[in-house]
Amino acid sequence: MNDMTMGLKTGTPRAITESWLAAFNSALAEGDVDNAARLFATTSFWRDLIAFTWNLKTVENPDGVRDMLSATLPHLGGVRFAIADEPTQSGEIVEAWLSFETGIGRGEAYVRLRDGVAWTLLTTLTELKGYEEATGFRRPMGAEHGISKTRKSWLEKREEEVRTLGYETQPYVLIIGGGQGGIALGARMRQLGVPHIVIDKHDRPGDQWRKRYKSLCLHDPVWYDHLPYIDFPKNWPVFSPKDKVGDWLEFYTKVMEINYWSKTIAKHAEFDEATKTWRVTVVRDGQEIELRPTQLVLATGMSGKPNIPNFKGMDKFRGEQQHSSQHPGPDAYAGKKVVVIGANNSAHDICAALWEVGADVTMVQRSSTHIVRSDSLMEEALGGLYSEQAVANGVTTRKADMTFASIPYKIMHEFHIPVYEKIQQRDKEFYDALRKAGFMLDFGDDGSGLFMKYLRRGSGYYIDVGACELVINGGIKLKSGVEIEEITETGVKFVDGTELPADLIVYATGYGSMNGWAADLISQEVADKVGKVWGLGSATAKDPGPWEGEERNMWKPTQQENLWFHGGNLHQSRHYSLYLALQLKARMEGLPTPVYGLQQVHHLR
Amino acid sequence: MNDMTMGLKTGTPRAITESWLAAFNSALAEGDVDNAARLFATTSFWRDLIAFTWNLKTVENPDGVRDMLSATLPHLGGVRFAIADEPTQSGEIVEAWLSFETGIGRGEAYVRLRDGVAWTLLTTLTELKGYEEATGFRRPMGAEHGISKTRKSWLEKREEEVRTLGYETQPYVLIIGGGQGGIALGARMRQLGVPHIVIDKHDRPGDQWRKRYKSLCLHDPVWYDHLPYIDFPKNWPVFSPKDKVGDWLEFYTKVMEINYWSKTIAKHAEFDEATKTWRVTVVRDGQEIELRPTQLVLATGMSGKPNIPNFKGMDKFRGEQQHSSQHPGPDAYAGKKVVVIGANNSAHDICAALWEVGADVTMVQRSSTHIVRSDSLMEEALGGLYSEQAVANGVTTRKADMTFASIPYKIMHEFHIPVYEKIQQRDKEFYDALRKAGFMLDFGDDGSGLFMKYLRRGSGYYIDVGACELVINGGIKLKSGVEIEEITETGVKFVDGTELPADLIVYATGYGSMNGWAADLISQEVADKVGKVWGLGSATAKDPGPWEGEERNMWKPTQQENLWFHGGNLHQSRHYSLYLALQLKARMEGLPTPVYGLQQVHHLR
Repeated sequence: MNDMTMGLKTGTPRAITESWLAAFNSALAEGDVDNAARLFATTSFWRDLIAFTWNLKTVENPDGVRDMLSATLPHLGGVRFAIADEPTQSGEIVEAWLSFETGIGRGEAYVRLRDGVAWTLLTTLTELKGYEEATGFRRPMGAEHGISKTRKSWLEKREEEVRTLGYETQPYVLIIGGGQGGIALGARMRQLGVPHIVIDKHDRPGDQWRKRYKSLCLHDPVWYDHLPYIDFPKNWPVFSPKDKVGDWLEFYTKVMEINYWSKTIAKHAEFDEATKTWRVTVVRDGQEIELRPTQLVLATGMSGKPNIPNFKGMDKFRGEQQHSSQHPGPDAYAGKKVVVIGANNSAHDICAALWEVGADVTMVQRSSTHIVRSDSLMEEALGGLYSEQAVANGVTTRKADMTFASIPYKIMHEFHIPVYEKIQQRDKEFYDALRKAGFMLDFGDDGSGLFMKYLRRGSGYYIDVGACELVINGGIKLKSGVEIEEITETGVKFVDGTELPADLIVYATGYGSMNGWAADLISQEVADKVGKVWGLGSATAKDPGPWEGEERNMWKPTQQENLWFHGGNLHQSRHYSLYLALQLKARMEGLPTPVYGLQQVHHLR
Repeated sequence: MNDMTMGLKTGTPRAITESWLAAFNSALAEGDVDNAARLFATTSFWRDLIAFTWNLKTVENPDGVRDMLSATLPHLGGVRFAIADEPTQSGEIVEAWLSFETGIGRGEAYVRLRDGVAWTLLTTLTELKGYEEATGFRRPMGAEHGISKTRKSWLEKREEEVRTLGYETQPYVLIIGGGQGGIALGARMRQLGVPHIVIDKHDRPGDQWRKRYKSLCLHDPVWYDHLPYIDFPKNWPVFSPKDKVGDWLEFYTKVMEINYWSKTIAKHAEFDEATKTWRVTVVRDGQEIELRPTQLVLATGMSGKPNIPNFKGMDKFRGEQQHSSQHPGPDAYAGKKVVVIGANNSAHDICAALWEVGADVTMVQRSSTHIVRSDSLMEEALGGLYSEQAVANGVTTRKADMTFASIPYKIMHEFHIPVYEKIQQRDKEFYDALRKAGFMLDFGDDGSGLFMKYLRRGSGYYIDVGACELVINGGIKLKSGVEIEEITETGVKFVDGTELPADLIVYATGYGSMNGWAADLISQEVADKVGKVWGLGSATAKDPGPWEGEERNMWKPTQQENLWFHGGNLHQSRHYSLYLALQLKARMEGLPTPVYGLQQVHHLR
């Protein structure tokens, strides 16, 4: 600690925050990156969502701060922070909501101070100056008061756009995949005035959910699931049934005026280096069309690219085989013998639904699974930020998202480990019963549980909404810990010599990295250039190092110019679509967007 | 002022409110209606929305309070008020938000105290004990955690309801008319668990708006127009284009799971005195069905029953004649001669749209019209309660609705007269130009302007969004103040001997009382028994006395058992659907609902 930060340690939370902020603002105003860096603790994290870096980037420690500011400060046109809400103190940590403004835009920030210096800082850009969204005081008039012989009605203009876009005019952004990710981004594109088309293979928006197995409900609660602009109403179920989600997405797409092409498949895309635009061949309702967007967003989802295993003998099996994504639901399999290979979310849901109709169903568990009961997850892990109580406590969705985002990935597991220790105690009988049934349990490599598994690998867990009881009581048979030798003509044979007869084999074997989509759609070369999508580089199972600091390739620039990946759960689709949308808007408007710390590629898939 | 109310006059707003409330609560607890009545000023108003009276009722002065409490207090099972928000003072008036609870339900109230006694009191029931809506902390789970071989998915249950309701099972409530009124009430019925069907003649929800002339936008601003449960988003236009409203209503109908039968016409209804249910013959998509609801709601709207004039010679006219509600929009009339008879909202909108396509259009004004510019209306009249600034000031939609409802109809004009005096000054040049063009202007019989005209007669005004400029500059020709003698084969002939040739005559002559619907659907006998619908009995034009105190027959019990009227603008559809819904729910659950002060019939139409 140097002279400058002396005396910042004492006083009220507001005084401590004001002192730090005065020093920080002053250092930034003077372009003094050394002094700015000294305002960060020896171990500290600055997470920036496009406000400084035009990237999603976490830098660490004073050195990281110095490096980042040296590169970015000259482009910002000044920056100034202010306190946005009364700072609070909890233990030795003072926390404060901040607002800030740069030459480019306005943003929100959250800082945690310890010993008078920053331990964590989150900075997020929320709007571009001169390109603010037309909401609230800026909302459009709608009616054009006054009279004119040439004006067109809203409907006429909308119909003209629908008729000409993609034919006579080109979208600036093409979004491939019209689930919640594509829809949330499409809504933001509309609000920011970015010409866009979202294409999707299904008949109607929402079919991504409707077409899944009939008992499916969201495993995340409603408070976590709001889309941008329109919240689910107060009467919406906590865990929404899939068809209700589907209907909501369909009508959201309509009222938000998203340019959405259903029944449309992307066949091939290539980047034209000369014009810096994409040439994308799509088939819309049977008709082939070439689109020329500048930006291409793959929003096909983490569950977009089925991972189908390659067991010996699969070609000889005389029954039915399908990946979990192709499973039509249980109705046709009453009384049939079904083997489900896999023991994560889909496997559990599919097994339970099959049991309900009276199928003879066996789950094959090949490696350990993290299980957490839905109630416990809500009460111990999510409830503080996303629950009716949180709403009552004044935690808006935006505040919850920001708080969630403010914990650096590097230390996030430290916050989660005690939660899952508590859950293990709380649900001890349940876990013991599962183990007794032969189920292989884990809580992640470091005991950090569900969210870290999701963020690191996007797989390896089941949020229990009932299927575990069937595993425990034998309603769902379990074959665990024995490798599969081959698929025979009549079933599944294991290395221990046992064999499970099957009329149907479901491969609930998950999904591959999203750059597999880029390989299919563009080229293997581009897929390899971009590298693995998702994961933090945590050096835990299925998330090899080195440490990345942010999700690989998600919502931020990639090694392939003008190619972007978007997806994740409803929370991520809502929150990160904002930053992706602002990056796209800035490029469309020709604003300089120098990217700090573009990620390197360490893994191809 | 007696001993009891002495000393209530001084102190902080909170102290004054607390003193009054202590005395009021005590009088109510003791059933001492005399003392309760003494807490009201000599000139005072208690407006109750079903909490005490199971009626919409305003009683006046201590005598009125005494009479009402004598009749209602014995049924309430106790009542107690509490302060809900910090009381405020403005001039000599102390105002306070209150909450209260009776044996039956919970409610919200608003009181204005002057000289230590109540000048105005609004009491509103918001929920029935034991029948609270499943929202917020009570929202449904959605997913049924746990396992069961017999459970049905949300979709299966919903599909079964859709298939059987009206055929194998009967709705408790049948709502005829699926505009914003029927839809808002349908949404509340769903939330309260009341089996209901909304029937409507159009192809799709929202067609009530879509099918109107193409330039139509809402004349009320977005903050005034929210439906229950789902607000319009922040990016929604101030004055929404009609097709966008249509899409929103359709979306809302679906996601709120309203049982909505499109393409359905009610042919005949009769009340079965023996079973106390209705026998309603409807034709659904060509198929005749008999429904047996207990309650029948006519939500056909104030603009549901066209008022077609009976001019001599109408049968001889060789051109096209239509009521404004039948007008298809201007496109077919470019270059044609059109005479529009009427000078209110529809007439202006239709004339302006016809002018835009190049029709030769004349407006025939037979009596004076109240004109107010949309901007002035927003800024001077509505903005305090319904605007972006009001939202920023913390005026929620509910608070705005309650504040609006808290002004007794009897004195409401006194609040409005100065507003319209200001508007007349502000827009003097505009009004002068209109007068100079020969336009007959008024501001209501007592200068109280738009809302009072709307509440008293639902007609006689135009909110200017541009057409007045055309009247002023002659783009729309004006024929004013001369009676029509007859319709000739080729046009309209006036008593001054002039004649206007016409290819099309539009009768923008407004709509009749909603009990005209009851005559058509049920019988003239029932229509006469119920009497005129709408209006306050203000003894102003088209609203004959005696004074009623509330809108005639709207949202409250009528002289015909189990027959209800619902409608009005989006604000009223939102706000009053709550009280109508609670009245219906209480009856379905068999709660005692003794009606105090059922309105008498003074006018048949």
